[in-house]
Amino acid sequence: MALKVAVLVAGSWGTALSRVLADNGHSVALWTRNSAQADEINHNRTNEKYLPSAELPAGISATTDMAAALTGATAVLVVAPSAAMRDVARLAKPHLHKDSFVIHATKGFEIDSLKRMSTVLAEELERPEGEIVVLSGPSHAEEVVKRLPTTIVVAAKDIACAQAAQDLFMNGEYFRVYTNPDPVGVETAGAIKNIIALGAGLSDGLGFGDNAKAALITRGLAEIARLGAAMGANPLTFAGIAGVGDLIATCTSKHSRNWRAGSLLAQGVPAAEVQERIGMVVEGVRTTKAAYALARQFNVEMPIMAQLYAVLFEGLSPDRAVEALMGRVKTHEIEEIKEKWIPG
Amino acid sequence: MALKVAVLVAGSWGTALSRVLADNGHSVALWTRNSAQADEINHNRTNEKYLPSAELPAGISATTDMAAALTGATAVLVVAPSAAMRDVARLAKPHLHKDSFVIHATKGFEIDSLKRMSTVLAEELERPEGEIVVLSGPSHAEEVVKRLPTTIVVAAKDIACAQAAQDLFMNGEYFRVYTNPDPVGVETAGAIKNIIALGAGLSDGLGFGDNAKAALITRGLAEIARLGAAMGANPLTFAGIAGVGDLIATCTSKHSRNWRAGSLLAQGVPAAEVQERIGMVVEGVRTTKAAYALARQFNVEMPIMAQLYAVLFEGLSPDRAVEALMGRVKTHEIEEIKEKWIPG
Repeated sequence: MALKVAVLVAGSWGTALSRVLADNGHSVALWTRNSAQADEINHNRTNEKYLPSAELPAGISATTDMAAALTGATAVLVVAPSAAMRDVARLAKPHLHKDSFVIHATKGFEIDSLKRMSTVLAEELERPEGEIVVLSGPSHAEEVVKRLPTTIVVAAKDIACAQAAQDLFMNGEYFRVYTNPDPVGVETAGAIKNIIALGAGLSDGLGFGDNAKAALITRGLAEIARLGAAMGANPLTFAGIAGVGDLIATCTSKHSRNWRAGSLLAQGVPAAEVQERIGMVVEGVRTTKAAYALARQFNVEMPIMAQLYAVLFEGLSPDRAVEALMGRVKTHEIEEIKEKWIPG
Repeated sequence: MALKVAVLVAGSWGTALSRVLADNGHSVALWTRNSAQADEINHNRTNEKYLPSAELPAGISATTDMAAALTGATAVLVVAPSAAMRDVARLAKPHLHKDSFVIHATKGFEIDSLKRMSTVLAEELERPEGEIVVLSGPSHAEEVVKRLPTTIVVAAKDIACAQAAQDLFMNGEYFRVYTNPDPVGVETAGAIKNIIALGAGLSDGLGFGDNAKAALITRGLAEIARLGAAMGANPLTFAGIAGVGDLIATCTSKHSRNWRAGSLLAQGVPAAEVQERIGMVVEGVRTTKAAYALARQFNVEMPIMAQLYAVLFEGLSPDRAVEALMGRVKTHEIEEIKEKWIPG
């Protein structure tokens, strides 16, 4: 059945997901604050700055009018940067129909409150948090828009909401959607993987190889799983598409801003300059701060994350960080994994 | 303490591990059947065919004399190809001191018996299987020989044996060794990851992207974990260095023979020709046959492996295999992970 779906913010991921929805026969209202961008989408059928060379079908129409975007929409997909999430939700609230359902695909925490994105949405939209759906997984927008095979998960405590999102996005040809009842795990995994990607960039930038990077990803995953479990997530989520899957895609892609940030740090660029040089938001830098605070709050040991925090915010040199990680005492692996994957 | 260690077979991994041992001050007797190769190692201090441009220190001496290699050796490290394991063990048996301890670093199953390598060694060397140590992890030999940071696990039921191996190999500068009490898990993970690497090559060869490959690795890992658990392994091993760690390093490296084999299959090279074109043993092809038989024996569903088996041995076209994997019915992820990671 063809439905109207509002997509808030026309970044690369919002635009790519709009294309999936349009491919599935839905009518997409893509909201942006930028009227030049709206014009480009509506007239040229492109969004060059955010998703170069993607052709956008007639089923997508862009607008700067939030009321127009949301009127008659069965579902709203929010894909704002984490720092803009609360503002965008506030703008949407007055126009949101009470029966429309809410999905988000934003990775990161609210930096000061340390809240997950679905908590922020639930607060601002005055919805039960269990009905908010999180969409996540290994999904470079550039590949989705080429219709290359991609799998993602949609997670909500209220599984009927996740199933509704699955029905919207599932495309038998290239977009495979799994439901998952653990939004806490999916959101934690999605946010923190950017830290590990930053670490992977650092490792590559120091001239280390695939052995080091594979170890970093594996042990980073264990850290994330342990923090997630302490926050109430199901550890199995971290073994799935939105956990290890997304981590692999992010850490092995050189297109990732987080990877580039790490690589610049390794080259000796001061942490304060890295963000500037990249020009766009590096979620991993902000998320390291949030995760460091969360690890303290939940009393979880996260040695890799702590070293990255020290490099970013305390002036530790990248070489010394790696030395600290390699030079730890001899350890018994299963005990460490148990400690990390299973909350104590 | 400097010890004598015999290393059987001077392939790339045996040679790289010999260098680690020599770096740790041990004296290595590296056995090979090939006297020209032994001469090259002893006089040129190189092993060009198997580990180009690596310089081999004086602490390594090569020999074609098994008795000389094993006399006075505190430990023996066997790194033969899986198909040669039983033969090499038979040659070693008469010369092996009863107190010397046995480590192996070979990935794969014995093809007809479906036995793990430590079972084969225990049978031929008449040792308790629990004392045989398995060494595994994300470790391209080319990187180890450059002294790039690498982590591995050494696993044995008798943890004192694993700790002895840890003491031999641990190098604070670049080689970090974890002990693990689950050799069944470590061996199963090490063998079967080659199948997933073959699948990764197939995916890349078909022109798919990082999204598809990340999904394949994630779901492949779940299949391996499920088979391993059915065989008596601890599922947590698959979340560790020898599980997901090795899988990531193998699947994201284009140096892997298994990856290349998959990539050739995708280009339409018939399965029968692939092995020939590559020129060296492609463990993933042999292992697919063994894993297919093991999955039937233990009654474990392994959809990715089954599709690869059909491509390799039943003439299924690679495109159809991917279609079959993408086109499955809508699924609930956590249930699937539970089903796969936790034996039913």
